[in-house]
Amino acid sequence: MELVILIIVLALLEYLVFSFQVGNARVKYNIKAPAVTGHPVFERYFRVQQNTIEQLIIFVPAIFSYSYVAENLGWPGNETAAILGVIFLVGRALYARAYARDPATRGVGFLMSFLPSVVLLAGTLIGILISLL
Amino acid sequence: MELVILIIVLALLEYLVFSFQVGNARVKYNIKAPAVTGHPVFERYFRVQQNTIEQLIIFVPAIFSYSYVAENLGWPGNETAAILGVIFLVGRALYARAYARDPATRGVGFLMSFLPSVVLLAGTLIGILISLL
Amino acid sequence: MELVILIIVLALLEYLVFSFQVGNARVKYNIKAPAVTGHPVFERYFRVQQNTIEQLIIFVPAIFSYSYVAENLGWPGNETAAILGVIFLVGRALYARAYARDPATRGVGFLMSFLPSVVLLAGTLIGILISLL
Repeated sequence: MELVILIIVLALLEYLVFSFQVGNARVKYNIKAPAVTGHPVFERYFRVQQNTIEQLIIFVPAIFSYSYVAENLGWPGNETAAILGVIFLVGRALYARAYARDPATRGVGFLMSFLPSVVLLAGTLIGILISLL
Repeated sequence: MELVILIIVLALLEYLVFSFQVGNARVKYNIKAPAVTGHPVFERYFRVQQNTIEQLIIFVPAIFSYSYVAENLGWPGNETAAILGVIFLVGRALYARAYARDPATRGVGFLMSFLPSVVLLAGTLIGILISLL
Repeated sequence: MELVILIIVLALLEYLVFSFQVGNARVKYNIKAPAVTGHPVFERYFRVQQNTIEQLIIFVPAIFSYSYVAENLGWPGNETAAILGVIFLVGRALYARAYARDPATRGVGFLMSFLPSVVLLAGTLIGILISLL
């Protein structure tokens, strides 16, 4: 479980970095709260943060659920979850960098953070079906 | 616990469907990132996704907390949580369908996904007070 | 664990209050869904809710992870987490009140809800490193 919590903590710290970048862009481009539009570069950083929320809301429960269900079945749940988690972390970093440079190039980073969540959810579902049957 | 994790996984998969619908609407109505406005139908799908985040942020910890506290007290926590979870899942689906057709009709689906969370939170609070006293 | 769940439930109930305030402002200033702009006071309440999501997405997993890791190490994890949680709850309330009156004054409340999450994440990281070594 410690391995999975480590990944979750790293994902949250990465998200914190994205949040700081929004704050910096807010100051730099003089976007006064509560506005969240007004300069395209600010909007890119804001969308990176928002999209990371949209991903974390799946990823955090999914990695936790998968490792719980998989370990109960005697699978190497923590290790598999950690590998998928590292792909997620790298994917988010690529996504953020690509979005800031050119939103059109954000696809690879998006998939690298999105697919691990899908695999974790599918693995959890399969694990639950096996436990219940 | 497996039953509760099953509900959480289904809620996350339902949320994934809403996210795909936003992506489809982004392409269909030619809304280029980072914009999140520009066509009323796109904005409806986007608000369904955003509102589902606003709900999941309560629902996931609430169903987990309720089942943990209730089971510790010897209540049928998993079963009650699962029933409330199914209402949540159906409510979200009705909400999304109603919002896409006519935002003014989204009330029933909203309540069906909102009230289960309130009941889970209230049940958790009552359970904690009983455990502590 | 019950103490930590109590804090999480209170944070979610506080968030529910912010959500109701958005709903009220939507009616009062006649902002029709799916619009989320149109009146500065509505936008303030909306940003309070959104910023609370941005905080809860860190705070809930962070307080849970910290108390799990700290208790496993024999530290008073639940009690420390509960104290930090109370600071978070008060900070969010101050943030919401300040934002509604004058967005420029929201700094103190923001820090009071942001720093507890950072301390919880840092504490979890340190705890995991100690467990693994």
